[in-house]
Amino acid sequence: MKRTLEETLLESIRTIPDYPKPGVLFRDITTLLGNARAFRRAIDELVHPYAGNKIDKIAGIEARGFILGGAMAHQLSSGFVPIRKKGKLPHETVRVAYSLEYGLDEMEMHVDAVAPGEKVILVDDLIATGGTAEAACRLLHQIGADIVAACFVIDLPDLGGRARLEAMGVDVRTLISFEGE
Amino acid sequence: MKRTLEETLLESIRTIPDYPKPGVLFRDITTLLGNARAFRRAIDELVHPYAGNKIDKIAGIEARGFILGGAMAHQLSSGFVPIRKKGKLPHETVRVAYSLEYGLDEMEMHVDAVAPGEKVILVDDLIATGGTAEAACRLLHQIGADIVAACFVIDLPDLGGRARLEAMGVDVRTLISFEGE
Repeated sequence: MKRTLEETLLESIRTIPDYPKPGVLFRDITTLLGNARAFRRAIDELVHPYAGNKIDKIAGIEARGFILGGAMAHQLSSGFVPIRKKGKLPHETVRVAYSLEYGLDEMEMHVDAVAPGEKVILVDDLIATGGTAEAACRLLHQIGADIVAACFVIDLPDLGGRARLEAMGVDVRTLISFEGE
Repeated sequence: MKRTLEETLLESIRTIPDYPKPGVLFRDITTLLGNARAFRRAIDELVHPYAGNKIDKIAGIEARGFILGGAMAHQLSSGFVPIRKKGKLPHETVRVAYSLEYGLDEMEMHVDAVAPGEKVILVDDLIATGGTAEAACRLLHQIGADIVAACFVIDLPDLGGRARLEAMGVDVRTLISFEGE
């Protein structure tokens, strides 16, 4: 019996209870990445709507967004742009602060990583509150990128991240949802 | 005039003098990744010898190895395995210590990321002294992986990394070299 994409992805994600702290169900995507069929189906499905368009760059959020973004860039024949934690990029950067559960952090992108008007797809493995993704979109807007979409394998819709990006005018694409988290 | 692969790659890598410290020429691969044509040619050339074989997993070293490894895994229809700095993986891990310029660090991989006998290609952006890559190979051997090759875009041969991996019996594949560094 042929499995649907959703079944294939759900079966390949490992759930780790009480990680990183009691009461949290951590959705571990490494088992999906390690499953050749699930990984390929996830990437093909993420890029599917954009296959006919010219996408200049895939911007991946460190670190799991690098794995997905590298694959998407190769599949779409786009360039890849890393969005990194501060202090890790060697050339001149633009920088943005964002809130974590406790305190602030900063993320950076090379100032010349995207030319004004270039079409960019943002990618990370999961969207929860959307704080990191919103900061990444602000960085991309700051250097004049045209954000075609923000893509995530997993959506935790109860945490509001999708709505937060859509309120910025960013199209959001996700493959599977876990509700009630 | 058609450029050779080597010309395309050399032209797309940015050299940053005196980074991260005086006297060091830092080879910045982000400009290669951002160049759609150079990125695609690099990935296609890295995977070319393995296209006929069944490669079970691509193991990428955090963080730039994730970008290249994600693309290689997609192109070869393999799974992807992250080798991470300690404390970042949620499930049970195997761990190895390795030397940095000052002191020791540790890297980890999920204990079930590779089954014994599975064929694995290791990837990172650059090999210099080979300390990180050697540690990654030790991790892979520890869980019984069959390391088909270790791939890097850039080789700094004067620093001895390639010889160090070959002394472990690991085949090394690199695309371009910078000598005298």
